[in-house]
Amino acid sequence: MAEYLAPHVAVLAHDPRAVEMPVGVEPASLAQVSGCDIVILAVPVAAMRAVCREMAPYLKPGALVMDVGSVKVEPAAILREELPAHVDLIATHPLFGPQSVGQGMAGLKIVLCPLRGTRARRVATFLRRAFGLAVLFATPEEHDREAAFTQGLTHLIAKAMLRMEHLPERITTRSFDLIRQAVEMVRHDAVGVSRAIEQANPFSAEARDCFFAEMEAVRLECEAPSLPAVRAELVEAWQFS
Amino acid sequence: MAEYLAPHVAVLAHDPRAVEMPVGVEPASLAQVSGCDIVILAVPVAAMRAVCREMAPYLKPGALVMDVGSVKVEPAAILREELPAHVDLIATHPLFGPQSVGQGMAGLKIVLCPLRGTRARRVATFLRRAFGLAVLFATPEEHDREAAFTQGLTHLIAKAMLRMEHLPERITTRSFDLIRQAVEMVRHDAVGVSRAIEQANPFSAEARDCFFAEMEAVRLECEAPSLPAVRAELVEAWQFS
Repeated sequence: MAEYLAPHVAVLAHDPRAVEMPVGVEPASLAQVSGCDIVILAVPVAAMRAVCREMAPYLKPGALVMDVGSVKVEPAAILREELPAHVDLIATHPLFGPQSVGQGMAGLKIVLCPLRGTRARRVATFLRRAFGLAVLFATPEEHDREAAFTQGLTHLIAKAMLRMEHLPERITTRSFDLIRQAVEMVRHDAVGVSRAIEQANPFSAEARDCFFAEMEAVRLECEAPSLPAVRAELVEAWQFS
Repeated sequence: MAEYLAPHVAVLAHDPRAVEMPVGVEPASLAQVSGCDIVILAVPVAAMRAVCREMAPYLKPGALVMDVGSVKVEPAAILREELPAHVDLIATHPLFGPQSVGQGMAGLKIVLCPLRGTRARRVATFLRRAFGLAVLFATPEEHDREAAFTQGLTHLIAKAMLRMEHLPERITTRSFDLIRQAVEMVRHDAVGVSRAIEQANPFSAEARDCFFAEMEAVRLECEAPSLPAVRAELVEAWQFS
């Protein structure tokens, strides 16, 4: 994110781990980055409350604080509870990661959940103009309810497929290639992303139960095909003889 | 297939159902099409033996017979058993369908299983030059073993997702979009294709058992995360605070 923002604005970044900063991004202390006009948190949900408390004293009146976590209900609550009333808040979720950006950012989606203040429209305009992003507005609840299914199911499918090592790579259908590509995109997700999707989304258990119930139904149908399925096959075969 | 072949060769087609023929394709009787230099069967596996018996008397010495079914072990055995020794045989599986061809055929894969005769190389050269297809050679067993996993898993995932009606369409990650696209490609598969993948592939039960076992492992891990998973999350969160 810092790398893509750097050509547009001056970017300071603080990372407690020793990481190399992208070109045009200035390393800085937590106090320094917290004193900026716009502050973007990119931390695991589990670390968010602690980081917010550390940052709070340095935040300038009128600053805009955003996050980029994979779930929104819990981070939105933490931002509202821990950060001073004199800063504006927008919770966000870019619905893509470094793997997808390789093919260009135009048309990729980002969700904005305006929490406090009136600057979400301006942020949306910037994201559209600078990067060609498709900006979606939603409440944190709306986001988590939908993401529990879309992001959640991808995550479950990817986990199962990654457990199946040595899947064939030669005789592959076009549709399998697409699924494989989806799995590769989430293969290197940080542990925190994975756990956020599974645990921190209040709707994830419901989505998971629904998916596993349908999987079980498919398994049973494969073992003992239903009468209508068998009949449809016979009818189709008859048409050819 | 007939539509794409018509610009290259004269194409006669026989379909027992009343269907409209593509431009440049001549409707004909079973006897007429069976008397051609190259005969391509596109029928459900369940109808294949009966159709082969009907065609056999009309096949010319030196003709080339091919099929295009989604599995290869059983169709290959039927072609060998039912068709006269004086015809050449190549079992094939185009690893794509009408849904994928919309975006162009170049780079799409087709498997050729040479069964009898020496014309597979020439067929491969034609498919590469005329359509830009990636031609893979395999035995029927090699094909079915790999397809049981690649085609088979796509099929199971698609079946489960198609059962989940009203999946969200707005807040979708890039990786979910790819899976959704894969599901749409197989949504309209004929009943026979679906049943061939599930039942007529001798390796499909093994692939299915393996996939469902990993799905169950994922389910259990979601309900009660393992100690290493919890530890990894805590370590990651600590690095930020």
